[in-house]
Amino acid sequence: MTKPPKIILASTSPRRKQLLEQIDFSFEIIPSTIYEDFNISLKPKNFAMHYAELKAKDVASNYTDALVIGADTIVVYDDKILGKPKDKNESFDMLTMLSGNTHKVITGVSIQWQSCNISETFAEETFVTFREISKSDILYYISTYNPLDKAGSYGIQDWFSVYVKEIKGDFYNVMGFPLSSFYQRYKRIIEADD
Amino acid sequence: MTKPPKIILASTSPRRKQLLEQIDFSFEIIPSTIYEDFNISLKPKNFAMHYAELKAKDVASNYTDALVIGADTIVVYDDKILGKPKDKNESFDMLTMLSGNTHKVITGVSIQWQSCNISETFAEETFVTFREISKSDILYYISTYNPLDKAGSYGIQDWFSVYVKEIKGDFYNVMGFPLSSFYQRYKRIIEADD
Repeated sequence: MTKPPKIILASTSPRRKQLLEQIDFSFEIIPSTIYEDFNISLKPKNFAMHYAELKAKDVASNYTDALVIGADTIVVYDDKILGKPKDKNESFDMLTMLSGNTHKVITGVSIQWQSCNISETFAEETFVTFREISKSDILYYISTYNPLDKAGSYGIQDWFSVYVKEIKGDFYNVMGFPLSSFYQRYKRIIEADD
Repeated sequence: MTKPPKIILASTSPRRKQLLEQIDFSFEIIPSTIYEDFNISLKPKNFAMHYAELKAKDVASNYTDALVIGADTIVVYDDKILGKPKDKNESFDMLTMLSGNTHKVITGVSIQWQSCNISETFAEETFVTFREISKSDILYYISTYNPLDKAGSYGIQDWFSVYVKEIKGDFYNVMGFPLSSFYQRYKRIIEADD
């Protein structure tokens, strides 16, 4: 199979855009119109895969010739799914809860290429361990940075990195897109025989 | 103790500059004149600490009021220390050796602040696991990117990230500077009582 005529990233996340550029992809951004309901009863991995697939399919239905990539990143602690905080209070509560502990970051990724009958969805998991964070540093971070657009209310690629003691897994998965496992699947798709 | 009047990074690495900027540090870059001898007989951690300290002390001797930061990053596989490859052939050999395996990245960091009698040196270790890389992809990488200025001949922050299956430890340590453990030590220094 040859390369797709067009690649679409169905996400407005600036981090995902940056990561796909890092591996020399050329693509267009067309956001989906999917709204996430955190009350649906799905296990974390299934939740992330479910929404990644919904987002990709939503856009793919209008661009059947294109390879469409959807993604959904969540933070999981104590079996609770954390998405983006809705305000600074929730941001404070999330960071207080994660301080000094290990949580999981799960990104679901879905690849939809309708004209070639390609539909693949998977999830990648990374463990992240935070140091203890003082209340004043949490308040400093919330007021100085903008954690409201980030699952779990932190960016591993900004100032908050000083509190990330260690990770186990793919770093870029924590930023919002598992570059390495995505690339393996992408390569398998474009190198497959027709 | 208050903040140092001046912070100096004794390194020309663009990655280290970028990482210190990521945590909002203001600093000047003044490279050391230390030359690394890979034939000296030191264990990997001691090797990285030895050169980090030599570099920091070299610059600190001329700027006694400043807090000087030196760093040295090495890749260790099978008890062999890999620095920067000297040419494309060595680059090819390094990447072939690391393909499909787990290696260690060690960064030694030294903080020298002579007027306050501060001299601290430590090392941080991160495990990095590569997927199997085909010969053609290694050749593509070497010809397209510039791995000659990087220990172990790869950049975890560039296209090569597609072959990094997982890491265990601090991601930024692999890029050349362990932000989190450095910041803890720095904070302890500036918050200490006189």
